[in-house]
Amino acid sequence: MNRSDQSLLTTLLANRHDEAAARATLLDAQARADALEPWLRAFVHRPDTYAVRGAVARALVGVPIGVKDLADTADMPTGYGSPAYDGHRPERDARIVSMIRALGGTVFGKTATTEFAWRGPAATVNPWNRAHTPGGSSSGSAAAVAAGIVPLAIGTQTVGSIIRPAAYCGIVGYKPSYRAVPGEGVHPLAASLDHVGFFGRSVDDVAVAHALFVEGAPQAVESEAAWRDHFPRGTSALTLGVVRTPFWDELIAPHQHANFDASLRTLSEGGARIVELDYGADLPQMREATLTILAVEAYRAVGDVAARAPALMSEHMRVLLSEGQAMPLERYQQALLLQAQVRSQSAALLQGCDALVTLPASGEAPHGHADTGDARFCAPWSLMGAPAVNVPSGWSDANLPLGFQIVGAFGDDAKLLRVAARIESMLKFERRAVTI
Amino acid sequence: MNRSDQSLLTTLLANRHDEAAARATLLDAQARADALEPWLRAFVHRPDTYAVRGAVARALVGVPIGVKDLADTADMPTGYGSPAYDGHRPERDARIVSMIRALGGTVFGKTATTEFAWRGPAATVNPWNRAHTPGGSSSGSAAAVAAGIVPLAIGTQTVGSIIRPAAYCGIVGYKPSYRAVPGEGVHPLAASLDHVGFFGRSVDDVAVAHALFVEGAPQAVESEAAWRDHFPRGTSALTLGVVRTPFWDELIAPHQHANFDASLRTLSEGGARIVELDYGADLPQMREATLTILAVEAYRAVGDVAARAPALMSEHMRVLLSEGQAMPLERYQQALLLQAQVRSQSAALLQGCDALVTLPASGEAPHGHADTGDARFCAPWSLMGAPAVNVPSGWSDANLPLGFQIVGAFGDDAKLLRVAARIESMLKFERRAVTI
Repeated sequence: MNRSDQSLLTTLLANRHDEAAARATLLDAQARADALEPWLRAFVHRPDTYAVRGAVARALVGVPIGVKDLADTADMPTGYGSPAYDGHRPERDARIVSMIRALGGTVFGKTATTEFAWRGPAATVNPWNRAHTPGGSSSGSAAAVAAGIVPLAIGTQTVGSIIRPAAYCGIVGYKPSYRAVPGEGVHPLAASLDHVGFFGRSVDDVAVAHALFVEGAPQAVESEAAWRDHFPRGTSALTLGVVRTPFWDELIAPHQHANFDASLRTLSEGGARIVELDYGADLPQMREATLTILAVEAYRAVGDVAARAPALMSEHMRVLLSEGQAMPLERYQQALLLQAQVRSQSAALLQGCDALVTLPASGEAPHGHADTGDARFCAPWSLMGAPAVNVPSGWSDANLPLGFQIVGAFGDDAKLLRVAARIESMLKFERRAVTI
Repeated sequence: MNRSDQSLLTTLLANRHDEAAARATLLDAQARADALEPWLRAFVHRPDTYAVRGAVARALVGVPIGVKDLADTADMPTGYGSPAYDGHRPERDARIVSMIRALGGTVFGKTATTEFAWRGPAATVNPWNRAHTPGGSSSGSAAAVAAGIVPLAIGTQTVGSIIRPAAYCGIVGYKPSYRAVPGEGVHPLAASLDHVGFFGRSVDDVAVAHALFVEGAPQAVESEAAWRDHFPRGTSALTLGVVRTPFWDELIAPHQHANFDASLRTLSEGGARIVELDYGADLPQMREATLTILAVEAYRAVGDVAARAPALMSEHMRVLLSEGQAMPLERYQQALLLQAQVRSQSAALLQGCDALVTLPASGEAPHGHADTGDARFCAPWSLMGAPAVNVPSGWSDANLPLGFQIVGAFGDDAKLLRVAARIESMLKFERRAVTI
């Protein structure tokens, strides 16, 4: 079974040695998708049937996993969210896809992405309020997990494409450290910034993904006891450094302000030490560098396709590509140098805190589907390559989730996930279920 | 004409407005290749005919360019130096290939590469002494330029694959700053280290490539006068910092030692200030980090192909992939952090010098074809992403060239090329011609 009140670990342990259970989980996900997809549109492709092949001893047997349609699949069409790749069939699986298969997992379907992971929206709607965006660019992956179709989905983040849709959809998004998960075979938007990561219903679920895909530690999920040993949450008091970005007062909606402050109070009451940081790095400069690298590298990755098929590109993409084409090389190289500098300083910038806490977005998911929301609250951590997690932290009046972003030091994903698990348990987010 | 005593600028200016001259240059290159290729084996594919299409006003019209067979070409087979990709035809051109075409240049053929740009040798021999390796991994590009077939060729360097074959073949190799030239559509060996760069007969020739492909300044090559304005060499005294790597005494052949010391004397007599640097960075640690990143990322890029076709992989590749598979994530991430640190410090590490000078290799090209030579003298600059140039500096007793490596600060390729041009003119390398 793939019930939304059941942890990923419970599901995979139940399926591991029981082929019938594995099949049932996949059928359950399929039934749920059949019921929800007519309006949700999280998937751009799903196979008609699923096989549970061979050894049921592998870690992810019977676990349906949504894969963002930016990652190549040799057995399913891969369209990168662009009509220029309509019906495109890659020669090889992306590395993350072959890792899923090697772990026994099932690629349940390709999830909708914005156009080449930039701003041209996917057809997916927000599962909690259909009039709102689910966020982007990993729109389908976030919505599929939030709607309880799959317990785990693969996303990518170049600026804010995992953390922001996770926040808008009320689930956990985990953007690992840069290159902690292989990006080979995933269409680049901006190679220096692109991260592959995960969506799950809880920190525990994405921590299972971390153990399997980042640490390469399948023994960690062989039993509940092994998992408790592998993922101890610790008991010492947390010190959390609050980073209020430069756009804090200007951009953040009142309900998000209130929710963030309430979250900090709850964490403080739970024993955490909250420190307002005068963050050492220059955040506006980091955002500027992110957008510079993005424009130049997107032009390199997509410019030739756009030149051949300009009519198949969105206005969003045209604007980005022309920015990239016009960008002075020197500005791009200065941006890469700033990136190297802040990455090498990422541990020091924590200033002794266990993690940074900040917002994932300016508020609830915006109304409408043309705009997938503002990514600027995620840009510094994407530039830095630091690991980041969104945990849901409340509901807005429009029945939309709000989020809370936690950021760690480059390479220390394991610690960040432990901190996030403790924050999640303190915030006590009220989980809801999308009804069929 | 494509005579080896003629500069790239002379050739392209002659061809620019003269379609017959452009055709003649291509036919000349073709005749030379037909004569030399039976033993040289620099190319794995050449088209039967070449067209000079349309506008002859573009910068590189009638310029035959060798393209390493690691870069995708939609109109020619692309084999990445591996029998696993025998006859493979990519869907799209690599970005560097589309840039060549947009500039009016002709992809003269695909040059031989070692297996996926690692150590499994190509069939190419050294044009100066057939019993010796041309170096790798850009074996065919270096040999094709050295033999006077093409005036310009595209190579890639992950550790030492441009600078070393340039040294072994007696030509100029230019490895630009990391990502100064787009790598999209070039098969990765290790994405964090892979550089696209150029081979030419002189610093001036690769500086023309820099103007066109890196600076995007076609107006710089519109006339001899425009070029002199664009590429002024300066007259102030150069200060050159000598970096003797940790393997200096242990590995370097006596003839290379003598040649390097003679080069320094010549430069000093020519007015350069030579400073022996106590280089601030930890070079053995940088080499270790380079090999760590290489192994992990090569496994990500090639591991799936190797798993499907193990019999088609060389022993070199099997060893590299198994190292990558076994590498602890933490060590990889520490290596990425060291890379970020040294990259952000690359200007400071020049310690006020105009450039660093060091060796490109331990000596002349090794005898035999099984081993493409030692790349460790190039590793630090590849990790750092700093621009580097090889200029030829003499001949060994075995009629093989020796080289001299010059390294600049990340992003300051223009200055490095000017310094290299002055060093080249002082060293007065005796150019020879491969006879048909």
